[in-house]
Amino acid sequence: MANIDMFRREAADLLGTRGFTFDPELVEPWLTDWRGRYTGKAVGLASPASTEEVARFVTLCAAHDVPIVPQGGNSGMSGGATPDESGASVVLSLRRMNSFREVNAAARQITCDAGVVLQTLHDTVEMEGLRFPLTLGGKGSATIGGLISTNAGGTQVLRHGTMRAQVLGIEAVLADGTIFSCLVPLKKDNRGFDLKQLLIGSEGTLGIVTAATLRLLPEIAERRVAWIGLSSISKARELLLHCEKMVGDALEAFEIIPAHCLDSVLAYLPEARSPLAGANAWHALVELVAGSGETDRLDQLAEDMLQSALERDLIEDAVISTSEAQAEAFWQLRDSISPAERAIGPAMQHDISVPVARMPEFVETASSRIEERFPGTRAIGFGHLGDGNIHFHVLAPPGAVRGEWERSDGKVISAYVHDLVTDFGGSISAEHGIGQMKRDELGRLGDPVALGLMRSVKQALDPRGILNPGKLVPLAPGGSRP
Amino acid sequence: MANIDMFRREAADLLGTRGFTFDPELVEPWLTDWRGRYTGKAVGLASPASTEEVARFVTLCAAHDVPIVPQGGNSGMSGGATPDESGASVVLSLRRMNSFREVNAAARQITCDAGVVLQTLHDTVEMEGLRFPLTLGGKGSATIGGLISTNAGGTQVLRHGTMRAQVLGIEAVLADGTIFSCLVPLKKDNRGFDLKQLLIGSEGTLGIVTAATLRLLPEIAERRVAWIGLSSISKARELLLHCEKMVGDALEAFEIIPAHCLDSVLAYLPEARSPLAGANAWHALVELVAGSGETDRLDQLAEDMLQSALERDLIEDAVISTSEAQAEAFWQLRDSISPAERAIGPAMQHDISVPVARMPEFVETASSRIEERFPGTRAIGFGHLGDGNIHFHVLAPPGAVRGEWERSDGKVISAYVHDLVTDFGGSISAEHGIGQMKRDELGRLGDPVALGLMRSVKQALDPRGILNPGKLVPLAPGGSRP
Repeated sequence: MANIDMFRREAADLLGTRGFTFDPELVEPWLTDWRGRYTGKAVGLASPASTEEVARFVTLCAAHDVPIVPQGGNSGMSGGATPDESGASVVLSLRRMNSFREVNAAARQITCDAGVVLQTLHDTVEMEGLRFPLTLGGKGSATIGGLISTNAGGTQVLRHGTMRAQVLGIEAVLADGTIFSCLVPLKKDNRGFDLKQLLIGSEGTLGIVTAATLRLLPEIAERRVAWIGLSSISKARELLLHCEKMVGDALEAFEIIPAHCLDSVLAYLPEARSPLAGANAWHALVELVAGSGETDRLDQLAEDMLQSALERDLIEDAVISTSEAQAEAFWQLRDSISPAERAIGPAMQHDISVPVARMPEFVETASSRIEERFPGTRAIGFGHLGDGNIHFHVLAPPGAVRGEWERSDGKVISAYVHDLVTDFGGSISAEHGIGQMKRDELGRLGDPVALGLMRSVKQALDPRGILNPGKLVPLAPGGSRP
Repeated sequence: MANIDMFRREAADLLGTRGFTFDPELVEPWLTDWRGRYTGKAVGLASPASTEEVARFVTLCAAHDVPIVPQGGNSGMSGGATPDESGASVVLSLRRMNSFREVNAAARQITCDAGVVLQTLHDTVEMEGLRFPLTLGGKGSATIGGLISTNAGGTQVLRHGTMRAQVLGIEAVLADGTIFSCLVPLKKDNRGFDLKQLLIGSEGTLGIVTAATLRLLPEIAERRVAWIGLSSISKARELLLHCEKMVGDALEAFEIIPAHCLDSVLAYLPEARSPLAGANAWHALVELVAGSGETDRLDQLAEDMLQSALERDLIEDAVISTSEAQAEAFWQLRDSISPAERAIGPAMQHDISVPVARMPEFVETASSRIEERFPGTRAIGFGHLGDGNIHFHVLAPPGAVRGEWERSDGKVISAYVHDLVTDFGGSISAEHGIGQMKRDELGRLGDPVALGLMRSVKQALDPRGILNPGKLVPLAPGGSRP
């Protein structure tokens, strides 16, 4: 980079005082990811107010060779929105771009800026009698642009797919400052390569998403949430197949929770209660939904499904929510697992997927091998069984020092987990992305042909490497810049 | 190219006599597209029997600089699988690769070679009590590889999406002969760019699809097909919204047919009968489906939906199929429109999409403007209203000479239609792809930023331009090779 002062002056001229700052106090909150795992430095914080400002700012950065780290809600799980420690790059926040451009209730489509927060989107479309079928724990901070850039998942993927399935169109600023405008509300469009697919999940390394057109669904009229006690994770898999067969499209979510997680949550949330009286090795949280006028059918479906599961010896015990408050309470138990486990002590958390059919075998194999090989650890898996996606946590032995353990033993354990996942034909990142956290592991374990393709595409779309360098795309063999 | 004889010898050595021929009699059938619009020449016809043979053959072609034209069932609509007239390229048929690699009924996934024919796939998964939710007129010849390469649509897109939505994993041979193997049966996988998305719909210009893992759905237990008389296309759009609201996920297809098309079909199929007694300006074919045990609910849904549509004055008349034979008969009327219209005389056929809400306005505007501007022509639109995708045909004036008219007046009319579609924010290719037929029109009307991106990606993945040159990717301004 030629001259930091000159770049800062030009950036401030371009974006104004609300749009650009290098005041350490204002910049600092955005230099650390929310989990506190990564901290970097930056030339400044840019907060453009429009797509045109983003485009002009990217052009400026390209001219000064200043790398750009795009940032949405700063609630990513893999350090993808945190700058490195060199201090050479600039953080580009999309948070000021938070307008809705068009709501088309009849077509069930909405177009909004990248900085719109997921919860705000939910609230807005609810007022139209519609819903956006993707949700996750960080909905109060996660932005649409960030969700698209990481192809976020959540608890409704089983029925509705990941963020990719919700995106009809995209607007993005490319590495040379041109605007790729593809907010096409067309259901079918076969005009060549589907370039928006390349931007979805590319974590800001190929372009900066500035707006999107998203699909919406009719509001759910009713839901029933069942909390089910199971004797093993194999039974959970059998129950899933049983559910899919019995209730079809009414199946909205299927999550599994081991006893350890429920116990941790009950200790963490003093007001919470176990839904079932007895103790069970595993639990499933199953949500069924129906449209208006189908309440009776929904009750019948839930009843029949559980009754036949009992008769087939798939489940030990079960309770169906009788009110929306109870349904919420069940979900709160599930959503509190991560903070509850964190409160216990240090842990290595792995967001992994394997073919659904092999999930029971994976969890049992991985848990016993790890606890044997790394004495004192405790390995647990919970989450989206229906998607073949488990959050596999390894808790440190008692007495381990937070911060130190993760960097030493924890790292060895993670490599071991990733090797095992790869042996099972799985993915080391199911829904959290690669960011800076898993880039080297992707380089170590990824298919060389796929990695070569990724580098070719990166080189073609960002030849100067100014878009989120150091993230996602593994270095080429020999360590040269991808 | 250095030496044709040497290339042919090496190709025959590599693939054997079943795998490579340049016997004109054997090659000729594959040098013309099935619509008879394009005819080319070729160095030979390669029919490898395995992915490894494809890879070695591509390597050979790259060494000799012989361009490759991949071909599946040769039933494409845009000339994408037909070689050019230079005779410099080789046709690579995937038809010998027609094995199923794995059927996993529990996971509802199937992995098969690219040359498997769609009808064979349907028959195979049906035996497992499952279905593949994409179908189209050419199902007896269209191959899985071709359907993926063109991101094919069909009559079930409304509910289940295009081919893209059915593909879980892909195996493909790249321009340098390496094998990109991504047949991952994972429901969630966020390890970097989703490269398979780039190959889907790329018409063989970025890689040659050799196999795929596809999602399957439970078999439909029951369906009801309603044939509905309407006074205008605007009413059809209102009826669609009404259906979406009333029957939700049970809505499987929503097609529209103008009186002219029905009359043509009734003249073309001597045994066919009009489903309704009176005459109607427009018709809608609406299919509702349900799983096992829901027959009564399905009948009730269909009855309620039509009753309330009548009360709201949306429809003129309607009949619901009372048997599978009658349902098939209704669909036969719809599926016979294309051949029936072709029998009348020359026509320019446009596979276009506009935002669903603007479709009635588009059809009315385009029809009246075209019939006024090009005296003697007749413009009609029919097809997938639910997807915003209409097949918009302009029939030649009486006496026009087939072949001549398409190349002169027809071409002017098509450009006019494409301009109008672009004005409406639509796409000049909704589901048939670009191929050689629409490449120049895409170059004329496409967004320059998107076209630039396409060329960059093409250059990155196929720097020597040996994969299906002259197809899909428009020339750069100035006419240089993309």
